Amino acid sequence: MKNNYYGVILAGGSGTRLWPISRELYPKQLLKLFGDKTLIQKTFLRIKKIIPAEKIYIITNKNFSEDINLQLRGLGFIRENMIIEPAQKNTAPAIALASNIIFQKDKSAITLFCPVDHIINPDTEFMKSVKTAFVEAKKNFLLFFGIIPDYPCQEYGYIKKEDINVKKEAYKVEKFIEKPLIEEAKKLISEKCLWNSGIFVWKNKVILEEIKKNLPKVYKSIESKNLESYHLIEPISIDKGVLEYSKKIKVIPVKFKWQDIGSWKSLYKLLPKNSMGNVLNENVIDFNCKNCLIYGTQKRIVGAIGLENLIVVDTEDAVLVSHYDQVHNVKSVFEKIKLKNLQQYLVHPTIERPWGSFTVIDQGLNFKVKKIIVKPKQKLSLQFHYKRSEHWVVLKGKAKVELDGKIFELGPHQSIDIPAYSKHRLENPGKEDLEIIEIQAGDYLGEDDIVRIDDIYDR
Amino acid sequence: MKNNYYGVILAGGSGTRLWPISRELYPKQLLKLFGDKTLIQKTFLRIKKIIPAEKIYIITNKNFSEDINLQLRGLGFIRENMIIEPAQKNTAPAIALASNIIFQKDKSAITLFCPVDHIINPDTEFMKSVKTAFVEAKKNFLLFFGIIPDYPCQEYGYIKKEDINVKKEAYKVEKFIEKPLIEEAKKLISEKCLWNSGIFVWKNKVILEEIKKNLPKVYKSIESKNLESYHLIEPISIDKGVLEYSKKIKVIPVKFKWQDIGSWKSLYKLLPKNSMGNVLNENVIDFNCKNCLIYGTQKRIVGAIGLENLIVVDTEDAVLVSHYDQVHNVKSVFEKIKLKNLQQYLVHPTIERPWGSFTVIDQGLNFKVKKIIVKPKQKLSLQFHYKRSEHWVVLKGKAKVELDGKIFELGPHQSIDIPAYSKHRLENPGKEDLEIIEIQAGDYLGEDDIVRIDDIYDR
Repeated sequence: MKNNYYGVILAGGSGTRLWPISRELYPKQLLKLFGDKTLIQKTFLRIKKIIPAEKIYIITNKNFSEDINLQLRGLGFIRENMIIEPAQKNTAPAIALASNIIFQKDKSAITLFCPVDHIINPDTEFMKSVKTAFVEAKKNFLLFFGIIPDYPCQEYGYIKKEDINVKKEAYKVEKFIEKPLIEEAKKLISEKCLWNSGIFVWKNKVILEEIKKNLPKVYKSIESKNLESYHLIEPISIDKGVLEYSKKIKVIPVKFKWQDIGSWKSLYKLLPKNSMGNVLNENVIDFNCKNCLIYGTQKRIVGAIGLENLIVVDTEDAVLVSHYDQVHNVKSVFEKIKLKNLQQYLVHPTIERPWGSFTVIDQGLNFKVKKIIVKPKQKLSLQFHYKRSEHWVVLKGKAKVELDGKIFELGPHQSIDIPAYSKHRLENPGKEDLEIIEIQAGDYLGEDDIVRIDDIYDR
Repeated sequence: MKNNYYGVILAGGSGTRLWPISRELYPKQLLKLFGDKTLIQKTFLRIKKIIPAEKIYIITNKNFSEDINLQLRGLGFIRENMIIEPAQKNTAPAIALASNIIFQKDKSAITLFCPVDHIINPDTEFMKSVKTAFVEAKKNFLLFFGIIPDYPCQEYGYIKKEDINVKKEAYKVEKFIEKPLIEEAKKLISEKCLWNSGIFVWKNKVILEEIKKNLPKVYKSIESKNLESYHLIEPISIDKGVLEYSKKIKVIPVKFKWQDIGSWKSLYKLLPKNSMGNVLNENVIDFNCKNCLIYGTQKRIVGAIGLENLIVVDTEDAVLVSHYDQVHNVKSVFEKIKLKNLQQYLVHPTIERPWGSFTVIDQGLNFKVKKIIVKPKQKLSLQFHYKRSEHWVVLKGKAKVELDGKIFELGPHQSIDIPAYSKHRLENPGKEDLEIIEIQAGDYLGEDDIVRIDDIYDR
């Protein structure tokens, strides 16, 4: 591949529509919805097939960047290629920001932009389309991938292309139609319109010129690197802000299967169903249900009886039960929970870390109890806390504890006290998971009271 | 009140139909379904208005007896009046057993038998009916209370009485009709039939004679006090086994409101609803739901969207989602969970004790983690374990620990090790709840590895 091809993954969305498995600080891109890889991992690996890892960038916000880095560090992602948006402003400002950063390094750059909330299959067809787009992009066109609709969806944008009776790789665009009513959607399909996939390819130089022309405030903010002015930008999508006015756009009809996974409804459509039309995972005990998506979680049970067209999603600390046709209202439920300032909108009780995970088991005034799992051969950072002391009890496995320069080896049922200000580090020198109970005591027990002195994960 | 009146509460039923809030070892009689008293507490207090506590007996099985005693000990119940059924054999053997025990003490005894799974209101009307029954029982009749039906229910037994056009306190019975079809139920109501409430009053001498005549094997087993023969009895109800054949039965139409709470369906009917017909408790966030019973639990959230005629019951470790019309199938779900030997059929993670409660937070091979709450001024038994050692860390409050004769006082974040075989006792000498984390280690961690040396609750 030539040297001036770049990839940018747009990973800033918060995805409240998949609550309760997505949370404000743990959006869908970080979730394993299919198989053993998360959405961001799948997207990164797909792009890596056609663009080298050192030229793949991710644009996201500061809340997700550490988790994204954690998920991609083993796959070749270069930490320096993480672009942090100063604020969430929809796709146009994010694309402008990423385009400019790459453009400053390589004036000839041609960049592929991909969202993370889609399933694409097979990757080989995706690669073919990208190659076609690269060719067209060299001619200064702004390309995007058009999906052949398989039903008259009312939630997508449609693109009417020119010369529909001529077979080409890329078509000029006649017009954009945003979220049509059902009758119009049917008509659009009969007119061979395409869905807008949100996947784009263009020269950075060309898109930046178009942004400068159509969204001068956005361009100015990006060019001047003025953080404050970025915060003042009105959120706007690249489609509405730029592409709908541009004469340079072309659409490439693609052959890969493309499915949006923005909602429980689209997930239900995607997942394999049993003979009764149900998607059931383990820990669901059902009786006489049909056309349901029922998602359970380890250690808990869902009993489901006589249900039809229902979405049930059970997690460690919250359960959603919704009629299939009304599940878009999960946003309202999410907002109500946020308003009440309950933890359930923000995070999961179990938090993944590079060395393992921890679960907040109990908390009250001046104490917090955590179960900590450290994977074999992993260690936490060397750290201390200003405001809290900790008491560790080993449940399972071996612990190596460094405490103010001394080393202690602990086995099951042995415990140690970690006073405030003490420099300490927990390590699993064994071959099986180390499980400990940590009991924190102090006036302030926030996760931000941590001073890392040394960290093998460069945090 | 005269001296030969007795009460017996029939509290042996396991109530799987209210899963997941009822469990095999924690049946509905132990639950607070309405207000601040459990069903057994309400039943005991109602009977105590007319019969002195020392003459009120409870018949149940060994699994529930400790919890029942715990709930009634503060209300005047005499521990010695707890009758343990050797096995669950439906009402006839239980009534025979209790009747005989009381008869052996008082040959003139007249006894009121009450199940626990009903709501009765007002108690004053109940008391009037009991007094009427006592008068009739002296004349050697077998009385039961008949409820005036308010809808053609197919799940109850109906009683056709004689002389329907004559106003009396008690009527002779023409026939029994068990669980009629809907059309027959309507006809029975038009014929002024009554529902069989399962509440009975009779001389012990008379019922024992009838049992001897109609169920000779049951009578023999009771009279001989032969435990083994009790196990061999075929389960049978007092209605089917005795009353349907007896010439001595009379029904008393009652004026109190009577409602069965044997199922989620009957609970929904009973509970106060909002303007949308929903019964919602705290921790439920709903959107556009109607005619639903949605029951949440502390620390968790239920999000409910667009639901209709649905029962949702969320607990610490399991959630039930069922269509209202099919909720009787909860028994099948319960049986499947039991077959899989999952904890969720048997107990709740949180177990109430006379001194407070404990919750199993985590468990694995060779370890178990519990959160223990000890109420002010309460203490656990002086005990030891053969197979496990324990490690206690105080989260909140003050702990007084006796360990092999020595006393230790612990405050928040202090910890102590309790080796196997050590005699130990935990006490809360303070004015607020004591909360501790207990970490158990050992090859065997069953609740039955406990030797109690001294216990203020006489366990």
